[in-house]
Formats: sequence, C-alpha cells, structure tokens
Amino acid sequence: MRDVAIIGVSQTKFGELWDTSFRDMITEAGLKAIGDAGIEGADLEAMFVGNMSAGLFVEQEHIASLIADQAGLNPIPCTRVEAACASGGLALRSGIMAVASGYHDVVISAGVEKMTDVVDPTPVISTAADQEWEVQQGASFPSLYAMMARRHMHEYGTTREQLAMFSVINHKNGFLNPLAQFPMKITVDQVLNSSMVADPLRLLDCSPITDGAAAVILCPAEDARKYTDTPIYVKASAQASGTIGLHERRDITTIDATVHAARMAYKMAGLKPQDIDVAEVHDCFSINGLLAIEDLGFVEKGKAGPAVEDGITERDGKIPINPSGGLKSRGHPLGATGIAQTAEIVWQLRGEAGKRQINGLEIGMTHNIGGTGGTAAVHIFSN
Amino acid sequence: MRDVAIIGVSQTKFGELWDTSFRDMITEAGLKAIGDAGIEGADLEAMFVGNMSAGLFVEQEHIASLIADQAGLNPIPCTRVEAACASGGLALRSGIMAVASGYHDVVISAGVEKMTDVVDPTPVISTAADQEWEVQQGASFPSLYAMMARRHMHEYGTTREQLAMFSVINHKNGFLNPLAQFPMKITVDQVLNSSMVADPLRLLDCSPITDGAAAVILCPAEDARKYTDTPIYVKASAQASGTIGLHERRDITTIDATVHAARMAYKMAGLKPQDIDVAEVHDCFSINGLLAIEDLGFVEKGKAGPAVEDGITERDGKIPINPSGGLKSRGHPLGATGIAQTAEIVWQLRGEAGKRQINGLEIGMTHNIGGTGGTAAVHIFSN
Repeated sequence: MRDVAIIGVSQTKFGELWDTSFRDMITEAGLKAIGDAGIEGADLEAMFVGNMSAGLFVEQEHIASLIADQAGLNPIPCTRVEAACASGGLALRSGIMAVASGYHDVVISAGVEKMTDVVDPTPVISTAADQEWEVQQGASFPSLYAMMARRHMHEYGTTREQLAMFSVINHKNGFLNPLAQFPMKITVDQVLNSSMVADPLRLLDCSPITDGAAAVILCPAEDARKYTDTPIYVKASAQASGTIGLHERRDITTIDATVHAARMAYKMAGLKPQDIDVAEVHDCFSINGLLAIEDLGFVEKGKAGPAVEDGITERDGKIPINPSGGLKSRGHPLGATGIAQTAEIVWQLRGEAGKRQINGLEIGMTHNIGGTGGTAAVHIFSN
Repeated sequence: MRDVAIIGVSQTKFGELWDTSFRDMITEAGLKAIGDAGIEGADLEAMFVGNMSAGLFVEQEHIASLIADQAGLNPIPCTRVEAACASGGLALRSGIMAVASGYHDVVISAGVEKMTDVVDPTPVISTAADQEWEVQQGASFPSLYAMMARRHMHEYGTTREQLAMFSVINHKNGFLNPLAQFPMKITVDQVLNSSMVADPLRLLDCSPITDGAAAVILCPAEDARKYTDTPIYVKASAQASGTIGLHERRDITTIDATVHAARMAYKMAGLKPQDIDVAEVHDCFSINGLLAIEDLGFVEKGKAGPAVEDGITERDGKIPINPSGGLKSRGHPLGATGIAQTAEIVWQLRGEAGKRQINGLEIGMTHNIGGTGGTAAVHIFSN
C-alpha cells in the first residue's frame, strides 16, 4: 500500500450563492485546488466527488460526468460517492485508496452541494435518515438530534449553556475565516434566545443551509515534494457504519460509527487522542460537536459539556476544535463538508490559516458523519 | 498493487417486483452472494453499492448505511457510488481498488435499483443527462439514442432490421435465463411493429423499467482458492468519462468513453479484442449494443449492423454478446446492471450458466455505461 500526500486544497466561499450554479461552484473549487498544487488539469488521473443529493436539490444525477465535462477533464475516470453529509469524507477516502492502490497517481477528491435551489431543503436532507422508520413517522434531523441532546443532558448533566458554548466558540473562529458563511461572533445569550427549532435545540445550535464546494489533490507521498514544499501526509483514513436509525442504538448519546472509525484511524496512524493537535469535527448541531469530542477520545464520555465550558476546545485550548468555524459558522454544504474540513486542516498544518492560525501544529484530524451517524469518516494528517 | 479475484456472485430475479422493497432486494442479493462465496457476513470488511437514484425513486439517500444496517454489517465501511446506469460498474471498480490497495481483504460490491415505486420513471432517468443543455430542452434518453441511431443509419447504412436483430438475439438468450425480466423470444417483425418510442426506436428496441439487485464478492487473488475451487480473476478494471451531453461530441456514433476505457482495459490485461471469448455489453437501446461492439473493437467502425445480421454475436458466434439476455431481456435496474453483467460473466467462466452456457470460455468482458456515454466502465475477467 502506497502512502498518500495532499499537495493542493481549495474551498469556495460558503453561503447562499444565488449567482453561482452547481457546475460553476465545483469547477471553481477544482481550478483553485489545481492552482494551489501548481499542477495542470491534464496531470489529474482520476476524480472523486462527494455529493449527497444533486438529484433532489438540482435534479441532476451523473454529476461526476457533468463535472468532468464542465472542467474539461475527459476522459479521466470520475466517480461520485455518497453517504449523506459524510459524502466528502468518503470522496477523500476513495481518492486515497485510488492512489494507495497504484491505480492512479494524481487524483482530485472534491465535494459539492447546491442546497438553495429548492423551496424547502428539509425533506431532501431527511432522505439521509431511515425513510420508513424515521421520516415517515415525522422525524427530521433537528428532532433526531434534539433527542440525542435531551438524553445527553439527562444522562450526564450537560447544560443548555454548554451546548450554546460550542456554537459560540465556532463563531469566534469563523469570524476569522473569510470563506465562512456566517463570519460573525455570537453570545451564549443569543443562542439561548434564538428561535426554538426542536427542543432543546434552537436556531443557533443548528448548522445552516449552504451552497459550496471544496477540493483536495492527492499524490503518492514519495512524489509529493516534486509538487510542493509543504506536503501534508495522510496518516490514516478510516470509515465505519452505524445503524441509520436512532431507535436501534444501544445508546443514543454515543455515535458508534465515530468510535469505530476513530479506533481504526488511531491504530493506522499509531497515535492516540492526546497526539492530535487540532481537529475539525462534524457539528451539524451543537450536541453533535459535544458527542464528537467524546467519541473521538478527546474527553471522557459525558464530560464534553464541562470541557467546552472550560475552553479546552478554543484555539488556544488543549485540543482546538473547528478553527474554521465548523459546520455552524463556516457552513455545511453537505457533500462538500468533509473536503472543506480537510482543506482547513491542511491550511493549519501548512501554517497558512491566516488570522485563525494555530501555532506549532503537527497532527490534525477530520471527523465527518452522515445522518445521525450511520456513516463516519475519520482522517489523520501530519506535516 | 494486489491482484483481485471474484469468489461469489448473485442476482435477484429482475422484474416489476411489487412485493419486494428496495431494502429487501439488496439484502437478498447480498445474502445470496455470501452463500455463493461460502463465507459468513462477518468475513466482509467493506461494502460498495452502485445505485443511480434511490433519492428520486424511493426518497432515500444514504443507502449504503441503510443496507449495512438492514444486513447487520455494521460497523464495516459502506459506500454508495453513482454514475447513472454505470453505477454498478463503478461499485465493482471501487471494490477492486479497495482490495488492490490493501485497505481491505474481503469486499462486497453490489448494485440495486427500485424503479417501479414512482408513477413516471422517465424524469428520474433523465437526470443522468445534462439537465440544462438536454433535458430542459425536451430531450430524454429514447430521443437522444434515437438521434445516435439515425446518424449511424445515415453514416453507415445500418438498417432498421439490423437494430431489431440485436434485440431478437438478446431475447433468444434471455429466454434461457430464469432471472430475466422478459424471458421470451421475439421476432424482427415484432420489433418493427412494436409501438414507436422515438423514431427510429420502437418499444422492443428499449430496455425495460426494472427492479433488481446483484452482488459480487472480491478478495485478493492469492487468497481466492481458500474460498472457492472456481475463482474468477480480475484482469482489468478501467473507467473513462466522456461529455455528458451529446451536442459536444465529435461524433455521436462513437462513445469515446467506451473507446478509452476499452483501450485501458486491453492494455492492463495485455489482451486484444480478439482474445475476448464472451462479453456483456450495455444495450439500454438496441443502437447502443451496436455501438458497443464497435467501440470495444469486436467489429470495425460502422460494421456492427451487418455483423449482428451475420450472427457473430450469437451464443455460437465469433464473439457471443449478452448471453444473459442483456439489458433488453434480462432487464435494466440501473445501478444493478454492471454487477449483474459481472455475475453473468462469472457464471459463464465457471461453467455454471445452465441452459445458456457457452463452452470453452477463458476470457470475459463487461461493458457498462452511464447516460449516453458520459461514463464507461470496462472489466476483463479470466478463469
């Protein structure tokens, strides 16, 4: 198995991009990643693109072919991978396997979602849950995560304010990210007084509806220095599945897919949670940020609330989480999120993260999940 | 790069399966493939599933998680891949890369589509074409392939009867396939007198709307004989992209993605077209069967019509094509087709194809495309 490195990354501005089409966004991300890697489009040997539901959002399937066509990449093989909001993480992993296998050398893994071209995105997003056992009974993601939050509060004494703190810290970071959808600071009071969405979750606990795209360029680790002076190495690429429906879980305050993927990733990299210097975690709702730092092993089970309150996840804390602003502030264009997380970690490990740069980083992690945790992808990188 | 072998295959009955749900079909295919390989579900290390549009057909995305859950496969990594009607071929290729890379040993690649749960499947299928440049202008797949057929007739003198012959031979084969959707013989006259769909294509030139699933189980070639006495080896796995829209092509009677993928596959296997003993090709419409045998190099460009008329593609001909009945007679559940083609070639190479068995086979090929050829996957196998 060949080791793999990242030699280029990109992210478009995230937001409600009314003037930018699906195909324009992904092409922009691809061109910027190619530019960042200092290669030509013709150097690419394969493309993988993560996208949850262009079929329902913009009535277009077969998007890998469309993108290759739009970007002038024919005839290279182009594949879409999908696992709801973890689609980006899986596109990254597919690209890594394509390089690791020796099938391809220089590969682009991208992610894209255009969510604002439908009147109501909620029914589309809900297709990531179990239609028959959850959605047809009235559940949607805010209500499913609300149950997880309520149970975490009941089991571990997590407070409403601690949930809010996760959003507040995300926005404090996103305020420094020019590509973030909502680069403004918020307060705990603002979270607690924002509109109720699904008790106990309020508007400012929820990641937004976002258009956006991101891309990374991969090559064999041994070739990386031909292209760049700052290669970032893939130390682990792990993926696991869990039940798609909440009702089947032994415990709805633990996402087993995250636990399994993290365990595999740590084993593959020969590292422990305390070796991770920075992580981008999947905070589609504030509660999921807390679950993530527990399930990834950064804090003890049930202790995420006090840990966030104590500031350990701040940029100057023990384990900085979501320096990009996370899904909450940077935005969450479903299929693009796993790739945007990777771009942020690459920028941080290169020392190119601008005003939000954290110093002295060596090891970074991304954590990307689908649905309420039916899929999890965990990657570890080093400089 | 590790060599890869196939140790188990399956296909459900194809048809309008009103009593069988999406999740039931794919679980049945998976269990049968596991049984065929003589392994346990717990031996599987990863799953890839090809599916074009469960989002639009059954309002369910995140299907790999759903399937893993339904089949009790958690926590192994499960990934959906999509490239319209080539989704199955890409799921196979993803599984092959996962094994070749060393990331996983025993992997299941499956395909599934439930097409009969919507009132009108045509708008769903049309999402595989370019929405903005084709579909919104009124094009659908029958009309796009009709243009390709008309041009082939104009350029090369291909006759209406020769197109019909491709369907007739498919049905002659499918008549012997107990898993086929339409296992009945048809005549050239019946094709010529069937309802007009898009001139010159008539109903019996068109593959049907189908529910179905199929699965294959892969492992490192060096381990294959631990599991089976009849391993089938993957000699080549190639994939290419072409323009998603017809209007951008240099020639609409050639599918460049097929040409590129075939060239790569032959190179990878160290073989030539004349070395192929049997092939399953993607005949979503009769014209596409003719284009396939030209683009794969079995006959000279423009000569497919007379070749089919001369019987070279019959089971006892020079290059037997679609012994399963092809998309036309076996049926075409979009995401399952590439995997079902693989199952047929495996059965043929093992000598387990029952009444439709062709004797003395050593090398087989599958050819699976998406849309009008925006994606093509070509695989070569040997016994």
